Amino acid sequence: MQAKRLYLQKIFVTGGAGYIGSHTCVELLNAGYDVIVYDNLSNASKEVLRRVEKITGKPLTFVKGDIRDGDTLEEAMQGCDAVIHFAGLKAVGESVEKPLEYYDNNVCGTVTLLKSMQKIGLKAIVFSSSATVYGDPEFLPLTEEHPLRTTNPYGQTKLVIEEILRDLYRADPSSWRISILRYFNPVGAHESGLIGEDPRGIPNNLMPFVSQVAVGRRDELQVFGGDYDTHDGTGVRDYIHVVDLARGHLAALKTLESAPQCEAVNLGTGKGYSVLDVVKAFEKASGKKVPYRITTRRPGDIATCYANPGKAKELLGWEAQYGLEKMCEDTWNFQSNNPEGIR
Amino acid sequence: MQAKRLYLQKIFVTGGAGYIGSHTCVELLNAGYDVIVYDNLSNASKEVLRRVEKITGKPLTFVKGDIRDGDTLEEAMQGCDAVIHFAGLKAVGESVEKPLEYYDNNVCGTVTLLKSMQKIGLKAIVFSSSATVYGDPEFLPLTEEHPLRTTNPYGQTKLVIEEILRDLYRADPSSWRISILRYFNPVGAHESGLIGEDPRGIPNNLMPFVSQVAVGRRDELQVFGGDYDTHDGTGVRDYIHVVDLARGHLAALKTLESAPQCEAVNLGTGKGYSVLDVVKAFEKASGKKVPYRITTRRPGDIATCYANPGKAKELLGWEAQYGLEKMCEDTWNFQSNNPEGIR
Repeated sequence: MQAKRLYLQKIFVTGGAGYIGSHTCVELLNAGYDVIVYDNLSNASKEVLRRVEKITGKPLTFVKGDIRDGDTLEEAMQGCDAVIHFAGLKAVGESVEKPLEYYDNNVCGTVTLLKSMQKIGLKAIVFSSSATVYGDPEFLPLTEEHPLRTTNPYGQTKLVIEEILRDLYRADPSSWRISILRYFNPVGAHESGLIGEDPRGIPNNLMPFVSQVAVGRRDELQVFGGDYDTHDGTGVRDYIHVVDLARGHLAALKTLESAPQCEAVNLGTGKGYSVLDVVKAFEKASGKKVPYRITTRRPGDIATCYANPGKAKELLGWEAQYGLEKMCEDTWNFQSNNPEGIR
Repeated sequence: MQAKRLYLQKIFVTGGAGYIGSHTCVELLNAGYDVIVYDNLSNASKEVLRRVEKITGKPLTFVKGDIRDGDTLEEAMQGCDAVIHFAGLKAVGESVEKPLEYYDNNVCGTVTLLKSMQKIGLKAIVFSSSATVYGDPEFLPLTEEHPLRTTNPYGQTKLVIEEILRDLYRADPSSWRISILRYFNPVGAHESGLIGEDPRGIPNNLMPFVSQVAVGRRDELQVFGGDYDTHDGTGVRDYIHVVDLARGHLAALKTLESAPQCEAVNLGTGKGYSVLDVVKAFEKASGKKVPYRITTRRPGDIATCYANPGKAKELLGWEAQYGLEKMCEDTWNFQSNNPEGIR
């Protein structure tokens, strides 16, 4: 008897109006998937979804809702084949100040999502995890076998959700299809310049800060620590173009079609760049000066972090296509087209 | 200026109709506290609370509710000075089969409780943790500094809640008063014989199983593993009389009056007894034969586990008073008075 092929056609995207979510929606629509975005718009705008439709020339369905609201979720997820779960709070510093908000939104939100999925028999999920689950690296490049531990509530929520997913798979290994994607540092924007990273308030991440300085919204970049053990003393990270990252989700979805599974996979390029490498590349791409000032380290920051992306290539058949130059160009294109963000 | 003394008078007890909860209510009422029990009665009976009132001759307030229901919680907690948080699911095997239920009830329930407490300005809590957070011991006796890790979803929920409490304290160290009590193996019953451990279905723990065999409700005891590296080959645990344990909570409450804090403390006797030691002591206390059969080990079970109870003595001024003989006598007294449990 031949096994019936499983098609994952209709995709439920939590947090689909956010930075990585919106870029993933573009790739999903371009690839012919049906997309339902579920977002509470707490840190995103509906305008982003209109732009996703403009880029792709295809419609998507939007449901405004919170992942902690099981009833709304269950109704919205009817008929879907898989979930890509981006929704969650993501600022490390804020998580230290408001840990309960983070556990509630991220952990309890995901528990509610998974309970709702189980209830309606929907058992395929791609989850947004983070390289933060590796903590301070014991070895580099980071493989998926590196020990897991975290140093702040945000990272702890990602780690706990990973553990929940593994426990869920162990309880029912013949039906759950679970892909845990550990993102390194997503940057860049869609080349249309219509969507990109659009933080409210002071950016927590390097690239939006750099681009806001370049466009004149901020005076100078604060570089946190110039005395790390790296080639120029500033922290080294594995930056990955958000479009590459988005495509990693499509590769993960395809892999879920093959069999029940629960796999954690790094999504990174395998290359590390320092803060000053990024500043220089950005200045070149934008033609703008990015004044910076080196200040003290931020507690919890590590010197160097980059992926071994081998498992993604082997298991998902995916690897990053874009380099730092393209990341900076696309960031600048988005920033200069949207100097005050997406309103 | 003299600091105002903080009195914790009115105590909100989640899961107060359960085994440890009910014994703690007896001690609280005897010591003159006001007690509000909050319990969803999913694994307990209201009759237990009537018996608590009978034992103490004092009334308590009961609110039927679930800790995942923030609105009911907030209303019920008004005017309370501290929370003792027992509510939660506790069967290791069931947690492997139904992990989402465990994360939902235990972790999300506690997050809801803590959010509600924060909202009404109630920031003193004693939490029921477990020696299970130490996993397979690296050294014995176990001190609070032993590394934390777990091997099943139940244990993971306890560990995650501990981490949430520590994160919460770090975020607001000048106002939270948190005591994390790591229980070893609670056994025994109130000497009145009116309340005790009353599991529904097949007992997960040794002592109720032994006593149900002695009273004739079950044919024989299954001993899981006779080839451990212990004096007689059966697993060794630190059994603690539930009345001692209950008094540990009162000592923790008193300590919370002194200053904001977040401390994890072992509640155990420091003595380890094997399964066969318990069987022999129980036969002596009951005058009944307890037939047993040695079978294979249960996955995840460890050979030996017992506490270093030094921190409890130093910090809480508490130590266990009762030995194995008394634990068995009181268990038998409860079992023989309630051969079919509390109905």
